[in-house]
Amino acid sequence: MTHALQMLETHPRRSAVPSVALVECIDACFDCSQSCTACADACLGEDDVGILIRCIRLCQDCSDTCATTGRILSRQTEFAPPLALAMLQSCADACRRSAEECELHAHHHEHCRVCADACRRCEDACRETLSSLAV
Amino acid sequence: MTHALQMLETHPRRSAVPSVALVECIDACFDCSQSCTACADACLGEDDVGILIRCIRLCQDCSDTCATTGRILSRQTEFAPPLALAMLQSCADACRRSAEECELHAHHHEHCRVCADACRRCEDACRETLSSLAV
Amino acid sequence: MTHALQMLETHPRRSAVPSVALVECIDACFDCSQSCTACADACLGEDDVGILIRCIRLCQDCSDTCATTGRILSRQTEFAPPLALAMLQSCADACRRSAEECELHAHHHEHCRVCADACRRCEDACRETLSSLAV
Amino acid sequence: MTHALQMLETHPRRSAVPSVALVECIDACFDCSQSCTACADACLGEDDVGILIRCIRLCQDCSDTCATTGRILSRQTEFAPPLALAMLQSCADACRRSAEECELHAHHHEHCRVCADACRRCEDACRETLSSLAV
Repeated sequence: MTHALQMLETHPRRSAVPSVALVECIDACFDCSQSCTACADACLGEDDVGILIRCIRLCQDCSDTCATTGRILSRQTEFAPPLALAMLQSCADACRRSAEECELHAHHHEHCRVCADACRRCEDACRETLSSLAV
Repeated sequence: MTHALQMLETHPRRSAVPSVALVECIDACFDCSQSCTACADACLGEDDVGILIRCIRLCQDCSDTCATTGRILSRQTEFAPPLALAMLQSCADACRRSAEECELHAHHHEHCRVCADACRRCEDACRETLSSLAV
Repeated sequence: MTHALQMLETHPRRSAVPSVALVECIDACFDCSQSCTACADACLGEDDVGILIRCIRLCQDCSDTCATTGRILSRQTEFAPPLALAMLQSCADACRRSAEECELHAHHHEHCRVCADACRRCEDACRETLSSLAV
Repeated sequence: MTHALQMLETHPRRSAVPSVALVECIDACFDCSQSCTACADACLGEDDVGILIRCIRLCQDCSDTCATTGRILSRQTEFAPPLALAMLQSCADACRRSAEECELHAHHHEHCRVCADACRRCEDACRETLSSLAV
């Protein structure tokens, strides 16, 4: 359980995005940032680290991108839709790339399977928020 | 629901801290980082922003400290207990300061009440992890 | 003086972007991330904070976006041009918005004038790197 | 050249630390955060990545710790010396650990030699600022 929904509902400014989609997206960004940091590190601890280099790199980029996107979406005062749109597109793209790479290793490494799941959840949430903002 | 527990359970290295305490601490760090970013921003959108300056500043510092602590704890490969201990102490301290300041404004601003709750949860989780590591 | 140039020159993988442009962009991202954090905080300490709310918000978003862009560009192993392109566009956009807002306050607040300068430097560096990558 | 000195000199609040030491510390934190991200990534691109695992992990932790410390020091409004002290101690410690590990690989990998230099500069700057604050 996170405090994201309560934080959004008690914010003095009204959100430009429906609360349910926005809270899911914020939660998914912070969760995916954590999973990707953990997966990059788990890959680093594997014996076959040599074939996981691309996975580590993409997970690190995805973790940073999700962290920034989650923060930008958490700020509703003077919310700037165009900047949010650009970051959401970068974030959905970073999540898709990490997910695709993690899926290649999912049969050998359970952490890649779990991380791919977190990335797909975040990719979907970003696309959902994008379509809310674009309306 | 976050993926932190599954990420920890599928990590190739064994954690130096019992999983239950560690997962709660990781989740609390990411959650508190989000709440503090949101609370600093909500304060910025209030009419009485002038009396919330200290609250904004402490929440910003707490958000950054929790983000870094959550990442360090998510890395279990070549885990360095002394560095984790130092960050956990900084983090517990940052959470306590934000909580105390938010509590001063909790009767006027619901987001400060909610954020104080996230900060206290994270402070407690850091202290719990500290005592596990110190054993 | 930063160590960015030396770090790039000693990296085992060859960069997809000419070193001069890339190092300037990395330096500008970290510098702008610092300036924007400092400017948001300086605005918060001003007596007329009420008219600086939008400036504070845009500087915070810009600081986070620059930090993530600077990190992604610092990673040259398995470099993914499409992800870098997307972040560079988000970053140039965030820098432009912060610069425009800071410029509105530059006559009253010197820190906004200095921060606008850091933002314009970073916006230019991102656009330069974008054109190198797009070739 | 960074904008950190100008940002500090134009800030409305007077710093609790002499400007020269503080600016050097802020610059060193952002520089070391960049170097450590780049060194972790350069290690990942080396053929002997297997013996660099500990170096990668320590550099990643150091990069995050320096980023947070650099941000906290950049905020002078309602500056809280005890929190800054705790983070400076964590940061000096993280820099020392990264430097020591990088120094072990400095003869084989130039990026480790350069990164160790950035870490030692930041460790020194943190200790200098600590002694200014402790007075």
